[in-house]
Amino acid sequence: MLVTDPADLFYMTGESLDGFFMFLAKGQAHVFTSEMLKEQVKAAVPFLNVVAGKDPFESFLSFLKRGKFNSIGIDHSKLKVSTFERFKKNNIKLLDSKGKIEEIRQVKDNKEIEKIRISCKIASQTYEAVKKLIKPGVSEIEISFKIDEIFARKHVKPSFQTIVAFGDHSAYPHHVCTARKLLKNDTVLIDMGCIFKGYCSDLTRTHFLGKITRLNKQVYSLVAEAKKKATQTLKPAVKAGEVDNAARRIIASAGFGKYFIHSTGHGVGVEIHESPRISRKNKALIKPGMVITIEPGIYLPGKFGVRIEDTYLVTETGNEVMTQ
Amino acid sequence: MLVTDPADLFYMTGESLDGFFMFLAKGQAHVFTSEMLKEQVKAAVPFLNVVAGKDPFESFLSFLKRGKFNSIGIDHSKLKVSTFERFKKNNIKLLDSKGKIEEIRQVKDNKEIEKIRISCKIASQTYEAVKKLIKPGVSEIEISFKIDEIFARKHVKPSFQTIVAFGDHSAYPHHVCTARKLLKNDTVLIDMGCIFKGYCSDLTRTHFLGKITRLNKQVYSLVAEAKKKATQTLKPAVKAGEVDNAARRIIASAGFGKYFIHSTGHGVGVEIHESPRISRKNKALIKPGMVITIEPGIYLPGKFGVRIEDTYLVTETGNEVMTQ
Repeated sequence: MLVTDPADLFYMTGESLDGFFMFLAKGQAHVFTSEMLKEQVKAAVPFLNVVAGKDPFESFLSFLKRGKFNSIGIDHSKLKVSTFERFKKNNIKLLDSKGKIEEIRQVKDNKEIEKIRISCKIASQTYEAVKKLIKPGVSEIEISFKIDEIFARKHVKPSFQTIVAFGDHSAYPHHVCTARKLLKNDTVLIDMGCIFKGYCSDLTRTHFLGKITRLNKQVYSLVAEAKKKATQTLKPAVKAGEVDNAARRIIASAGFGKYFIHSTGHGVGVEIHESPRISRKNKALIKPGMVITIEPGIYLPGKFGVRIEDTYLVTETGNEVMTQ
Repeated sequence: MLVTDPADLFYMTGESLDGFFMFLAKGQAHVFTSEMLKEQVKAAVPFLNVVAGKDPFESFLSFLKRGKFNSIGIDHSKLKVSTFERFKKNNIKLLDSKGKIEEIRQVKDNKEIEKIRISCKIASQTYEAVKKLIKPGVSEIEISFKIDEIFARKHVKPSFQTIVAFGDHSAYPHHVCTARKLLKNDTVLIDMGCIFKGYCSDLTRTHFLGKITRLNKQVYSLVAEAKKKATQTLKPAVKAGEVDNAARRIIASAGFGKYFIHSTGHGVGVEIHESPRISRKNKALIKPGMVITIEPGIYLPGKFGVRIEDTYLVTETGNEVMTQ
């Protein structure tokens, strides 16, 4: 089986270096890289067989021929046509190994959980520090860079492009920060997280500045209630889809169903979005050791949006929140 | 022609949003996105036709059928097998449009040059600020996060994972920062750059702390001389390969050829590495308005490495340095 995904490679080697890939066969792992990175990769994974060549793919093909491998596993969803053609030309049959390692990555061990716990703590503390700066006149970009600055001081990186959305911008689930300044009566939505030693965190907070309308209050309560129900549902042996439905039912029954335009959550680990997806039709079972976000939202175009999100660890009997 | 590359999409729309793609046909641009991002994409590109659907790819296929498109241009090097199969099933012939927009992106207009100029200035100033902190006892990671912190204060993001390499780590061209602390007599290599309003900068500085050996001096002078020669060669109508050779010849003739393990430079713009590559066999011609790095290096495994890099703007008659 060929491993080329950077997140999978980090998971297996602890190295976040670009420019190498791994082949797993007969209980052994072989690493292929360029001449340029040879020394660095050798030092990084001294316990593995490192093959370096001008064209790492060509080295790999020779390796397959020498080892008489006629078929290999590869993630078809990430396979490029040009690579596919090269394998075909060399009579290598490709079996689909999509998601095999991501599946293993779903359940975290204690060392991973500890890193995610610290990652979540840093993200929560940074939100609290930044919240004090949220005053009329400040811009989305200013708040976003302030988060980057605090992250850098705490020696972490953002786990994704931070979302700071004021007013009607909060109705865009994936808003990109602008120079828009905060007004006296405005919605403030912040979606942020960091990477600590390779492990991600994710949280979203929405609050209202100044005058809070009845609609603001109604929508916020509804999202909070949906999140509560989904969280109560999140435990071992439950289907991921059931967790999504628990949130979706609450929002739909109040007539806001068509404004909840994404799934309820996702796994978090070496990637900010990973398996399992907490989406309507996902029949995958929740397991202890999974780390999952619950983040329902309601988005009223031209008005405002509310999303509330925390990262949870699934325990033997239920779950515990990590981002508070 | 289908445009899916994020850098190409940013270049064409000014939007850095994920989750949409563009189809250019008959003088018109059509944008395809998900239901979730519909409102946001519409607001971002109000001058374009936005088609939103549950499955944007499915919407696109319907669009092609309605418009009677039988063949389209697509970048084969980025095309995934699964996408390829879907097109095939729908009898859409795929022509290779690899690099078509990246080719246009090579020559920058005045507005782009202005942004790169500011990006380069911020990177240079940040290096100067950080240089003062480079003292025995400081770690690679500390310096790297200090750069992130200053960048955040200046409202820019790193354009790539900053390289801070002490001692023998400087012999790895793509070193990933560690907790290694700076010693009294150590090599210090820093490769850094930022993104200002979507445009990148790139610079590398190497210096020696404490006692400088004869080999240190020899290697540094050689790299500096190679850089000077490549820079003198960098002007309109010269082949990219000639610029590479100008640097390579100097290093090879001193017997260090096998330690110069990468190409001499690359284009810089909305991506940190873009066309043209300043590599041995590239026959592409240098043109005014191109922004290019010159960055020869010599890497002695287990000992130390030296790389010196600046970003240059190609002018009508030669070039000017942007990162100083």
